[in-house]
Amino acid sequence: MCQCCVELYLLHLLCVQLHEIVIYKRKKNFMLRCVGSLRKMASFSGQKLEQVVKQLESFAPTSLAEKWDNVGLLIEPTKNKLVQRLLLTNDLTEPVMGEALEKNVDLIISYHPPIFRPLTRITQSNWKERVVASCLLNSIALYSPHTAWDKVLGGVNDWLAKAVDIKGIKPLVPEVGAEPGTGSGRLVDTNMTISQLVQALQEHIQQCVHVAYAVEHHAKSQVSTVGICAGSGGSLLRGVQADVMITGEMSHHELLDFNHNGTTVLLCNHSNSERGYLKEFKALLSERLEGACELFISEKDKDPLQTVIRGDAQGAQSIQQ
Amino acid sequence: MCQCCVELYLLHLLCVQLHEIVIYKRKKNFMLRCVGSLRKMASFSGQKLEQVVKQLESFAPTSLAEKWDNVGLLIEPTKNKLVQRLLLTNDLTEPVMGEALEKNVDLIISYHPPIFRPLTRITQSNWKERVVASCLLNSIALYSPHTAWDKVLGGVNDWLAKAVDIKGIKPLVPEVGAEPGTGSGRLVDTNMTISQLVQALQEHIQQCVHVAYAVEHHAKSQVSTVGICAGSGGSLLRGVQADVMITGEMSHHELLDFNHNGTTVLLCNHSNSERGYLKEFKALLSERLEGACELFISEKDKDPLQTVIRGDAQGAQSIQQ
Amino acid sequence: MCQCCVELYLLHLLCVQLHEIVIYKRKKNFMLRCVGSLRKMASFSGQKLEQVVKQLESFAPTSLAEKWDNVGLLIEPTKNKLVQRLLLTNDLTEPVMGEALEKNVDLIISYHPPIFRPLTRITQSNWKERVVASCLLNSIALYSPHTAWDKVLGGVNDWLAKAVDIKGIKPLVPEVGAEPGTGSGRLVDTNMTISQLVQALQEHIQQCVHVAYAVEHHAKSQVSTVGICAGSGGSLLRGVQADVMITGEMSHHELLDFNHNGTTVLLCNHSNSERGYLKEFKALLSERLEGACELFISEKDKDPLQTVIRGDAQGAQSIQQ
Amino acid sequence: MCQCCVELYLLHLLCVQLHEIVIYKRKKNFMLRCVGSLRKMASFSGQKLEQVVKQLESFAPTSLAEKWDNVGLLIEPTKNKLVQRLLLTNDLTEPVMGEALEKNVDLIISYHPPIFRPLTRITQSNWKERVVASCLLNSIALYSPHTAWDKVLGGVNDWLAKAVDIKGIKPLVPEVGAEPGTGSGRLVDTNMTISQLVQALQEHIQQCVHVAYAVEHHAKSQVSTVGICAGSGGSLLRGVQADVMITGEMSHHELLDFNHNGTTVLLCNHSNSERGYLKEFKALLSERLEGACELFISEKDKDPLQTVIRGDAQGAQSIQQ
Amino acid sequence: MCQCCVELYLLHLLCVQLHEIVIYKRKKNFMLRCVGSLRKMASFSGQKLEQVVKQLESFAPTSLAEKWDNVGLLIEPTKNKLVQRLLLTNDLTEPVMGEALEKNVDLIISYHPPIFRPLTRITQSNWKERVVASCLLNSIALYSPHTAWDKVLGGVNDWLAKAVDIKGIKPLVPEVGAEPGTGSGRLVDTNMTISQLVQALQEHIQQCVHVAYAVEHHAKSQVSTVGICAGSGGSLLRGVQADVMITGEMSHHELLDFNHNGTTVLLCNHSNSERGYLKEFKALLSERLEGACELFISEKDKDPLQTVIRGDAQGAQSIQQ
Amino acid sequence: MCQCCVELYLLHLLCVQLHEIVIYKRKKNFMLRCVGSLRKMASFSGQKLEQVVKQLESFAPTSLAEKWDNVGLLIEPTKNKLVQRLLLTNDLTEPVMGEALEKNVDLIISYHPPIFRPLTRITQSNWKERVVASCLLNSIALYSPHTAWDKVLGGVNDWLAKAVDIKGIKPLVPEVGAEPGTGSGRLVDTNMTISQLVQALQEHIQQCVHVAYAVEHHAKSQVSTVGICAGSGGSLLRGVQADVMITGEMSHHELLDFNHNGTTVLLCNHSNSERGYLKEFKALLSERLEGACELFISEKDKDPLQTVIRGDAQGAQSIQQ
Repeated sequence: MCQCCVELYLLHLLCVQLHEIVIYKRKKNFMLRCVGSLRKMASFSGQKLEQVVKQLESFAPTSLAEKWDNVGLLIEPTKNKLVQRLLLTNDLTEPVMGEALEKNVDLIISYHPPIFRPLTRITQSNWKERVVASCLLNSIALYSPHTAWDKVLGGVNDWLAKAVDIKGIKPLVPEVGAEPGTGSGRLVDTNMTISQLVQALQEHIQQCVHVAYAVEHHAKSQVSTVGICAGSGGSLLRGVQADVMITGEMSHHELLDFNHNGTTVLLCNHSNSERGYLKEFKALLSERLEGACELFISEKDKDPLQTVIRGDAQGAQSIQQ
Repeated sequence: MCQCCVELYLLHLLCVQLHEIVIYKRKKNFMLRCVGSLRKMASFSGQKLEQVVKQLESFAPTSLAEKWDNVGLLIEPTKNKLVQRLLLTNDLTEPVMGEALEKNVDLIISYHPPIFRPLTRITQSNWKERVVASCLLNSIALYSPHTAWDKVLGGVNDWLAKAVDIKGIKPLVPEVGAEPGTGSGRLVDTNMTISQLVQALQEHIQQCVHVAYAVEHHAKSQVSTVGICAGSGGSLLRGVQADVMITGEMSHHELLDFNHNGTTVLLCNHSNSERGYLKEFKALLSERLEGACELFISEKDKDPLQTVIRGDAQGAQSIQQ
Repeated sequence: MCQCCVELYLLHLLCVQLHEIVIYKRKKNFMLRCVGSLRKMASFSGQKLEQVVKQLESFAPTSLAEKWDNVGLLIEPTKNKLVQRLLLTNDLTEPVMGEALEKNVDLIISYHPPIFRPLTRITQSNWKERVVASCLLNSIALYSPHTAWDKVLGGVNDWLAKAVDIKGIKPLVPEVGAEPGTGSGRLVDTNMTISQLVQALQEHIQQCVHVAYAVEHHAKSQVSTVGICAGSGGSLLRGVQADVMITGEMSHHELLDFNHNGTTVLLCNHSNSERGYLKEFKALLSERLEGACELFISEKDKDPLQTVIRGDAQGAQSIQQ
Repeated sequence: MCQCCVELYLLHLLCVQLHEIVIYKRKKNFMLRCVGSLRKMASFSGQKLEQVVKQLESFAPTSLAEKWDNVGLLIEPTKNKLVQRLLLTNDLTEPVMGEALEKNVDLIISYHPPIFRPLTRITQSNWKERVVASCLLNSIALYSPHTAWDKVLGGVNDWLAKAVDIKGIKPLVPEVGAEPGTGSGRLVDTNMTISQLVQALQEHIQQCVHVAYAVEHHAKSQVSTVGICAGSGGSLLRGVQADVMITGEMSHHELLDFNHNGTTVLLCNHSNSERGYLKEFKALLSERLEGACELFISEKDKDPLQTVIRGDAQGAQSIQQ
Repeated sequence: MCQCCVELYLLHLLCVQLHEIVIYKRKKNFMLRCVGSLRKMASFSGQKLEQVVKQLESFAPTSLAEKWDNVGLLIEPTKNKLVQRLLLTNDLTEPVMGEALEKNVDLIISYHPPIFRPLTRITQSNWKERVVASCLLNSIALYSPHTAWDKVLGGVNDWLAKAVDIKGIKPLVPEVGAEPGTGSGRLVDTNMTISQLVQALQEHIQQCVHVAYAVEHHAKSQVSTVGICAGSGGSLLRGVQADVMITGEMSHHELLDFNHNGTTVLLCNHSNSERGYLKEFKALLSERLEGACELFISEKDKDPLQTVIRGDAQGAQSIQQ
Repeated sequence: MCQCCVELYLLHLLCVQLHEIVIYKRKKNFMLRCVGSLRKMASFSGQKLEQVVKQLESFAPTSLAEKWDNVGLLIEPTKNKLVQRLLLTNDLTEPVMGEALEKNVDLIISYHPPIFRPLTRITQSNWKERVVASCLLNSIALYSPHTAWDKVLGGVNDWLAKAVDIKGIKPLVPEVGAEPGTGSGRLVDTNMTISQLVQALQEHIQQCVHVAYAVEHHAKSQVSTVGICAGSGGSLLRGVQADVMITGEMSHHELLDFNHNGTTVLLCNHSNSERGYLKEFKALLSERLEGACELFISEKDKDPLQTVIRGDAQGAQSIQQ
């Protein structure tokens, strides 16, 4: 067997050996993808993972995050990892993980940390463990900012607040020792009717909204203060005095409490109150990385809930878009 | 002053003294209402509160309720209270309390207990304390069944399960030592598509529904098992294997867990998964009381949330009805 | 039926309807009492409850009270309640509640808070719930100062200390940031024998006293420092160095500890170490309210315990008076 | 120096060395006491401590005691200790400890355990540590039965119950797996007036008694059931239905609860509800030890409290005897 | 470019892309290793990971393990993993991980679970995380039996007990419902001197031993009972009555307790009391897998501690081998 | 009988009575010992216990000790105790207690507190209780400094650090508000090889040493920083960056953590890392007491562990000395 054939044979063996890695939900020919990724990689020099993390930290330090949170670099498969392609997502679900493999990315930035409850094992029987295993098996790093992005000036809550006609804005709980404007939640001064606010919020998040009117309120009630908390705002907003609260989700009993305290609540669904920020962040990060990496926003990432119009002949047609 | 005049003067004094009681959100003339209630009361002999409670307990014993719950007779203003008029509600909000005064009822049966966190005082500065004060001030008794109704055979979960084409049904956690069919949640065998189930559920609760599809599901997926939990089902349903879960509300992170475990979730909004049962219960109780009391279902009681159609010119028009 | 008769008939109906309210331990004719109370009310214009509470707070702010305590306005039946008649008591027992109804009062000031363990219901099966229900049913407000009065300058402990020939006095635990003299317990400098102190204390509280001599003490031992703690002083006085402690009650094992540490203890019975203050407070409050309200000290309020002389032919004759 | 003188000199040295031991509150000449104790010891052969403990355990096994309690042999100065003289006391106070040294006893049986809170050191700065040190320094063993005696048939509670004209008697909480009649507290059927019961109790304990009448009771009220709990009965008796409770001490707020639940409470003072039992026990133990040891009941042991008659010219003369 | 060249070029690209994986402490040429592993793999067909785990579980079910333990399949990189080569180790240290890569194994069985404290992230900054990352990156599965092996009949404790001349043997804490002989620790009857036992233990573990003599013991003391607990035996052995304890490590204060209770303790160092079992287990597993997999015992795995002879000229020469 | 004979007889009686005291492990004739101790006592005037404690406190205040520790004067048999003879020990074992009685000492200073878990009784069935009883029975005081000596400048850790060629030294956790150099543990700058350090440590403690090499270390590795913690250093040293740690004992899993973080650990055995300090302290205390007391270091006090050379024909010959 000539040297060339020997090497080809070795290539064959190698591929067999790599078999377990590559079969992960990859539908296209492996060779072609290599070629393809070769082509794509041509235009992005990449940056060391360490450098990318430095940029992420300099925008929103993980020290900002809540104590109970688990943020920062959660998966670092190897030292000196090079990052050429990078995926932004709100939730790292399995469809999004499949997309990451398709897009051949080196780093995933997932707003929500996929490792929240600490892991005692990493197997194929639980979706969060599968996602972690898949990252490591494919040498993909993972970074989660979560509450650091919630608090930072120009972060998720500031993005959500843009639904409101802002006359004034400040954090609900200012962060001690941080740049003014940093902190948990936002309190916005405005001058709108509830009806106008609902419409503006729908336009901003590009999704429908759920309204729980205060006992004394109606669509034309005037709004002068709005509390903002992306995600699940029940505990942060408790006790805050505002005409309207905008958040992602809130329990029935929390809603009744707010409504009896003179506050109307607008719910976006949890991730719809956060996801739109990724677009803003992509531009911001692209600039910080000076074009060294290719950035994607996940196309598979979406809120799990859709509201179905009642009486619709099709039965399960969503009204969300 | 003749005896008649003396008594009229005393009547006047008495009314002045009672002033604080009667002004409580009562808009009509007190005298007229007395006359009115005289007329109404004519046809209902009433029953001792003790007897009504006995009937409620014999249907769904409070010993069935969860340990953390606060159920049974929560307000008993006096001994030997006579119950002629009785109001059924899901939540005892202040609008519903106003209705109770309007309807001049003697007993309110509120599915959710208005006293949940124990009271350290009863003042006018908190809506739950105001409701309790108002009950006592107007000598209205209060009974809450909550999780006793959830577990009982023929209770809230059995009512909610009727949305499904039932081929078989059993409790998720059967109650030890109770009548078969009693217990927490329900597991239903069926043979429907998700789309059919959504439509049937909308008809049953007469409200729109929110759908979170399992990763592998779509509108036409076949459903053979359905988990049922009225109210907030996240913790009870965790770990249950079923194609679809029907519940009132569930958090974003719980939804993602179910969707990755092959389960589609249908959310009704918390109280919409419970309220419809009151109609069934009214008939049941009426029979048990043998017509001695007049029974009302609250007209003011409703879920706090309404979903607003996006792009609707009116901005805040509800699509729920 | 003429208008007059109609109204008399309505009066009759109204009274029937009010029946449950008025039968509460009222032995006299309702009409007569109305006339009577009419006469009495003539001379007292009353004050808004809110104003009375403001006076109570300005004397002894509830912020002074211990963290574990439950003080302030505990029952506020309606907004804008008018207070014309006001009852002072040490403990709001059922006999005292009966007296409050007899005296037709609008506000009870009970030194001990009747709601201490938080309430999960308000029924007729527990005396504290009955008292709360009775207050609300009869639109009587309730205020409890408890440890705020213990700490305030000129409060309960300062009153109790007057039994001692005071050469100097200061709080055991001075209240940070409050007027000098404010704080928990009192430490008094004096120059008396134990025997003189016992006699003086008996005169001051007008009740007999129980003595537990320090191991080295006897009736003629000289006393130069006295620790004071109205009520149950065991935990506050622990570790304090004084020749004598005066308190209401103390457990056997606490007594042995004090007696072995060189301290004689004088016990008054719990409420006898507090009740005498009401007389002082009545004068003080009367002045603050500028005669707008009629003030009573309860005649039914008394310590539950009586000591029986042994060998007394009558067997159960009290020696307390 | 002759042998005799040498030995006398050694005796002198020995005494000097023992000095710290013997000076402990011993007022009489050491030599004389030796002679005296020689005379006394002549008639009692003594028993091994191990054997005495076996007898104590066979009467009331320490396994009966409450879990929170600290009972049994608490101080065992040496192995194979011989017990010739034995002191019974309710509380091992320092006066009682002095008496033990005077009486030259080998074992103290103290109903209440002097070591209750575990010791981290044994010094002269705390009376309980001093008592423990004194026992060890003088080679005196210590045994405490406490709640084992409370529960045993024929123990402290059965003794206290003898104040009542017993028609029937049983434990409040029967001990599972023990001889019938064993358990916590006692419930006695009787037929007396309160006045008769108070007088009988005074005769039984030979001390005065404190009475807290139920709201509906008076001296002539008929008593058919009596709850018994020697010592501090508040928590054991809570919730028990009886016309009268007899116990040693109870807090003000517990008294009010009992009095409002239809129960009159008789208080003896803590140790007066227990001490009388020692006389019974002395006879019982003497028989079990077959006269091998000399038994004493402490003459210094007494309740710390004395009630002073008000208005008494002497000021501090006790009425207790 | 001909097809052959294209493929070679792709091979080159692929290797570049795999670069981060293969550089992990691999010193030999990648191609050669592939050829090598090709040759080796020829003779071992392998088994599905699922099947290997089934065999491990059937020998020592993970349900045997202590509740606080984290045992079983801890890393499962992919579904349907094929296991051809398998490494046994006591501790999965980084040198052992390097050996696993060198030996190109598919599964590591590490007696101690490398994931014990749950993981909140998997990075390169902590050695346990690096080991976990390396397993996943190289698609190596990981299984840990730990306390399941301690308890099983024929497991680690039974192996350690073979150092003793066994006259009788039973578990210290028998496992309820399991095969007789199963349970925590072992209690062995024997008839040796301490000196003989020390020598026999040294031979068995092939390491030196540390002795802590009971207060009354010496080298020639007779031993009739021996308590056995591989690893850290302090808490399991507490309170056990035996002449000698054999365990891996024990704290100073535990040693003093045992020595004063008449028990001599022999310490092997923690892992030396466990490691020898791997040889026995290898034979056992080989048989169960019917030769389908190649099994290795780690050559890098060893106890961290070496005792240095004092006064040795070399200063740090170990005496352990 | 002449007076002389009477006294001799009394002496006899007294000795019989004292029998239980003197038999405690005393093998020599009591009379002779009295004479002996007379002779010895001649040259040491002694000091009041109070004064000795004052000196101990002034060297290392007990306020320095850790909060969980139990230090200071633990046994004070009598007031005004005179201290003529004084024994220093690391652990107060029963052999050391026997030595104390032999040496007829008045005070034992035991580095480790014999009372650590609080005592609920003091009997002959547990060695720590026996030691406490023996101290009191023989009127011997007990003082334990423990962590106060660990932290003090010139204390146990400073002594242990002397094994290192010190270029610089500071506490690991400096004590706030104390003299510089005071605090927990020590961090030493040096310039040695591991091999040199091991040899120096062996010379310093006069015992063999156990070495656990860092993954990258060997005998010739250079050491520039050394962490020091006498006793059990696992938790204090966690997270400290140093090339080598010197401590008494450390668990297997702690060792692996240090070794993977680049730190070699040298273990002395717990008490061998502390005991050598007693010699230094004896000189220091002698000076402070100005020769008033006779000081001994225990000859019976030693580490419980001995390492046995493997393959040694004698089987159990220690290599430690």
